[in-house]
Amino acid sequence: MQHTEFASDNTAGICPEAMEALLAANSGHMASYGNDDWTRRACDAIRATFETDCEVFFVFNGTAANSLALASLCQSYHSIVCHKLAHVETDECGGPEFFSNGTKLLLAGGADGKLDMRGVEKLISARSDIHYPKPRAVTITQSTEVGTVYSLEEVRALGEGCREHDLAFHMDGARFANAVASLGVSPADITWRAGVDVLSFGGTKMGMPVGEAVVFFDHDMAKDFAYRCKQAGQLASKMRFLSAPWVGMLAENAWLTRAAHANAMARRLGNALARLPGIAPLFPVQSNAVFVSMPQHAADALKEKGWAFYSFIGAGGARFVCSWATQPEQVDALVADVKACLA
Amino acid sequence: MQHTEFASDNTAGICPEAMEALLAANSGHMASYGNDDWTRRACDAIRATFETDCEVFFVFNGTAANSLALASLCQSYHSIVCHKLAHVETDECGGPEFFSNGTKLLLAGGADGKLDMRGVEKLISARSDIHYPKPRAVTITQSTEVGTVYSLEEVRALGEGCREHDLAFHMDGARFANAVASLGVSPADITWRAGVDVLSFGGTKMGMPVGEAVVFFDHDMAKDFAYRCKQAGQLASKMRFLSAPWVGMLAENAWLTRAAHANAMARRLGNALARLPGIAPLFPVQSNAVFVSMPQHAADALKEKGWAFYSFIGAGGARFVCSWATQPEQVDALVADVKACLA
Amino acid sequence: MQHTEFASDNTAGICPEAMEALLAANSGHMASYGNDDWTRRACDAIRATFETDCEVFFVFNGTAANSLALASLCQSYHSIVCHKLAHVETDECGGPEFFSNGTKLLLAGGADGKLDMRGVEKLISARSDIHYPKPRAVTITQSTEVGTVYSLEEVRALGEGCREHDLAFHMDGARFANAVASLGVSPADITWRAGVDVLSFGGTKMGMPVGEAVVFFDHDMAKDFAYRCKQAGQLASKMRFLSAPWVGMLAENAWLTRAAHANAMARRLGNALARLPGIAPLFPVQSNAVFVSMPQHAADALKEKGWAFYSFIGAGGARFVCSWATQPEQVDALVADVKACLA
Amino acid sequence: MQHTEFASDNTAGICPEAMEALLAANSGHMASYGNDDWTRRACDAIRATFETDCEVFFVFNGTAANSLALASLCQSYHSIVCHKLAHVETDECGGPEFFSNGTKLLLAGGADGKLDMRGVEKLISARSDIHYPKPRAVTITQSTEVGTVYSLEEVRALGEGCREHDLAFHMDGARFANAVASLGVSPADITWRAGVDVLSFGGTKMGMPVGEAVVFFDHDMAKDFAYRCKQAGQLASKMRFLSAPWVGMLAENAWLTRAAHANAMARRLGNALARLPGIAPLFPVQSNAVFVSMPQHAADALKEKGWAFYSFIGAGGARFVCSWATQPEQVDALVADVKACLA
Repeated sequence: MQHTEFASDNTAGICPEAMEALLAANSGHMASYGNDDWTRRACDAIRATFETDCEVFFVFNGTAANSLALASLCQSYHSIVCHKLAHVETDECGGPEFFSNGTKLLLAGGADGKLDMRGVEKLISARSDIHYPKPRAVTITQSTEVGTVYSLEEVRALGEGCREHDLAFHMDGARFANAVASLGVSPADITWRAGVDVLSFGGTKMGMPVGEAVVFFDHDMAKDFAYRCKQAGQLASKMRFLSAPWVGMLAENAWLTRAAHANAMARRLGNALARLPGIAPLFPVQSNAVFVSMPQHAADALKEKGWAFYSFIGAGGARFVCSWATQPEQVDALVADVKACLA
Repeated sequence: MQHTEFASDNTAGICPEAMEALLAANSGHMASYGNDDWTRRACDAIRATFETDCEVFFVFNGTAANSLALASLCQSYHSIVCHKLAHVETDECGGPEFFSNGTKLLLAGGADGKLDMRGVEKLISARSDIHYPKPRAVTITQSTEVGTVYSLEEVRALGEGCREHDLAFHMDGARFANAVASLGVSPADITWRAGVDVLSFGGTKMGMPVGEAVVFFDHDMAKDFAYRCKQAGQLASKMRFLSAPWVGMLAENAWLTRAAHANAMARRLGNALARLPGIAPLFPVQSNAVFVSMPQHAADALKEKGWAFYSFIGAGGARFVCSWATQPEQVDALVADVKACLA
Repeated sequence: MQHTEFASDNTAGICPEAMEALLAANSGHMASYGNDDWTRRACDAIRATFETDCEVFFVFNGTAANSLALASLCQSYHSIVCHKLAHVETDECGGPEFFSNGTKLLLAGGADGKLDMRGVEKLISARSDIHYPKPRAVTITQSTEVGTVYSLEEVRALGEGCREHDLAFHMDGARFANAVASLGVSPADITWRAGVDVLSFGGTKMGMPVGEAVVFFDHDMAKDFAYRCKQAGQLASKMRFLSAPWVGMLAENAWLTRAAHANAMARRLGNALARLPGIAPLFPVQSNAVFVSMPQHAADALKEKGWAFYSFIGAGGARFVCSWATQPEQVDALVADVKACLA
Repeated sequence: MQHTEFASDNTAGICPEAMEALLAANSGHMASYGNDDWTRRACDAIRATFETDCEVFFVFNGTAANSLALASLCQSYHSIVCHKLAHVETDECGGPEFFSNGTKLLLAGGADGKLDMRGVEKLISARSDIHYPKPRAVTITQSTEVGTVYSLEEVRALGEGCREHDLAFHMDGARFANAVASLGVSPADITWRAGVDVLSFGGTKMGMPVGEAVVFFDHDMAKDFAYRCKQAGQLASKMRFLSAPWVGMLAENAWLTRAAHANAMARRLGNALARLPGIAPLFPVQSNAVFVSMPQHAADALKEKGWAFYSFIGAGGARFVCSWATQPEQVDALVADVKACLA
């Protein structure tokens, strides 16, 4: 039997608040393509969450949210700066290049999976001739692919740098909830007030069955974006089933409560693993993911016990991800098995 | 208050069999991206339904299903023959052109919204020089955009013609269930045995919250299609919520029972309307949609009463669509209001 | 032996003024990619010709000029209105759709191969929902594919209509020289002063070996167009050989003298053919092309005599095109052969 | 005054043999789009050169040749392995990504600007899941961007590796002539007999005004490539002016004689520079380019003297390129100025 509890936060099911709204939305006939009350309420809830009159579009998944957002910022001959570990580079099978018809990703390093302005500037100043794509946007992931979180100051510094260099600023927030819960900041402060132009606001990983929101803080940038979504196969006909879960999750801050739980489970796991001999943390545990290295034999043994996890960054590296659904007993069971495997 | 009951079959909610499976699937952690049991079962159910070892991919909506299927058959310099009323031409905002990076649609006429080989041949023989896109595929919609259904003979004739001219044959089956229920044929007979290479098998309109299946009857044509879906933002991470409803709907032929009900409601509506003076049927009612013309004042009055419906094909044209959720009382209420508006 | 003299104006060779400049440019080493004196002079000559500080880009052929210009005006989910006989629709193998990643062409009719605002408005007002591409540009061909010419008033009316509807206005000027020579207007009057935003200014058909100019009258629209050309394989390294012929042709209005000659040859041909029994003109001869209908047996016989010409618009239709290189004797020889074939 | 003699081999003009053929081709009317005798002869000459019945297509420039060839081998969700210094990566502004609608380039290192199978295998084995583009082709540049040349053994090893891993093998031969002249091998041996599937055979840098040939050694791979060229704006109407120079250059091996001269000039320059104190060769001089490092002050002084050259690979790096047109006196003048600048 396979234990998929920590393989990713998308192995979890639908969060109760999301499910409740989904069931409530399944009542009678309703206008399609987003012209329904649930979608209006979901957009309003997002606007309230960000304390601004932003433009909101619901799409099916994170690859689409990121790729469409970036395509709307760029032409095919432009380039986008991202971290070399960014999801848009490593896990979307060339989605950004496809949706933008060829935009190139420029890859920067940066400690703890985070981009900084020095790395951005190095890349965008390397070339200024027409034989190489012209830099047009920067994208960061919040929280990052290695479970770290950009501080308010870090986001602001990137926001200022983008303005200075006339670059659009996109945030891949597949795990935005975990970041906000971790930082204890307001969603507005960590996005548009810090210079973010567009946010991919992740719904799936925070507990929905399907769906992300693309949030434009700049109305001009959102021009004709509804056409872009439609053409790209990202306009749901029964939109209420994408939007209603947002109403459920954003009400009474359920999204942050659930994310805080996932973060707490990750800290519990991270702390317990760190105490085991032979285990070394690879990144600080700042959101809902734990990255450690362990002896290769232990990693192998753990897989043989049925634990599914993602291995990378060298031999023995392991990623464990917690979610709204993670239970303390599951954490403890994993820790016990790691301990046994180390022996 | 708006009456959206007949505006489209996508104004209906989730069908009980689909919902039951969705709820059952929401249990515990499960491998993501389709490596779960529900997805395996759904694929098997589709293979059993078509009595063949077809390749199955679940995507989010119909535009994506059609566009990805067609893009996999064509290069950018190819063309695709479709009816001028086809959804791929009139209602996907250039989706096929986008996903294929420029493939041109060649538009044929044809009675009752149906393509025939004479129309196809006229288009594909008009040009054979490299200054015009090369014909590569034919796509038909079953049931059609005007509620008619291709007979077994009609599909076979097109299948043979496609083989003869080395054209791939795609079927847009957004309402495939309604067609099969109407014809009383086996799904295998009306698709691969009649020469269809790829089917977009519609799930949303038959009662699911979201999701369609792309079914390849030719394994070679399906090569690398999983990569295509992933890159194009059409791979669900929590795939079980797309696939489980298929398990529910295909079990005990619920999909056909539900589609037969929708068809029956359309017949009830069509028959009742046809008896009203001033109403003229525009197309035979062969599936779940009814097209009639009525005096413009009546159409206006009906809209003022809150009835949402799609108007086209000249002044006074009206489309009414039934679904699994349509109730006889709703049909009767609409008929009564039409009658009142005609007065 | 084949007589290709009237098959097209691109069967002619290089015009003396273009050749002279080409030879003069072949002297020593020179900066590449357009950073040379010939290119600077060519751009200046075009600016002088249009009496304005336009932006000029040299590309290799007409498909590229049109497709890149249109792609710079549109996004993939937009549409472009053109005449159903427009070169972009009938003879560029889907180039506009490819370069724009899916933009749809909306086809209008219109007498004498010419678009009018009524036709444009009918198309752009047919749909306004996001399920169909959004109109964004209008393109006309001057002179047209059937040898007619838009009058100053006609271009102005379209220009005004475009402004009114917020549509960009492109002119495919593959045979712009013939149109200007025919109308006797200033290039400025018939383009930017009449509302044209971008012109594909044809070089090949007017006597160059290769190359067209894309002329932007609006600087903002030209933003980053150099990158677009480079990425799309349309930046010549030895640019001087594309640009020098422009210097030669524009000097002392050689381009107009040569075009006037081609137009005169077409009139000579048109007049002579019109006098033959059985020949009927299909379009007024306003530039360098003659369209007539003749009995099918005569057309067949003419082809057997080795005359190459393009047949279309029904049985017996024939297009004969004159160029800078057409000689009166060649016209007379063709007329004599047509006469013989009619017998 | 600027000295552009060594800035690139595309600062040279048209080589006498190419010019002679161009002038000869400018005689009378001729069928367009490649249906002329010069084009037939040019194709035959290329087939004779490669001793095989290859498929030949003439396009306008190197970016187009490479991008179209690669696009024909790949789908958008594929990846292509190239050296990190490859022209397709560093100097085509995302052309390969654009023409292929998003194919990703995977960048390998490798000594002397050359790819080896170890580097290829490391990249293609790093990922095998659908979340990352699937490797589909390898492209090498012969001669390389740093003036080195792949030996027969090196090309064969890559060819075998490609076969083994089911990868298509493309050669960017913008300076193929220089490589063949340097190696003294037969064009057939160093291409298709060594496993190369498609060659971009450079014409411009070897002395033509414009134009490259795409040579497919595998007929199946060339299927519909003419349509691809046409749609992408790469089909010349007056094709004879692109093809005739090939007839001139390939006759009596002029292309190799001219390339050998360029190589000899580079050796003369390389040897002379190597003798100067403070100058260090950066790469072996194996074709027509010389790469050296010199003190930054010397490089600055040389630029102030008007010498144009490309600087890269660290401070003081300089590239000097020779061509068919380079004269010994020019080489000596450059060497003298470098010497003076070093002082």
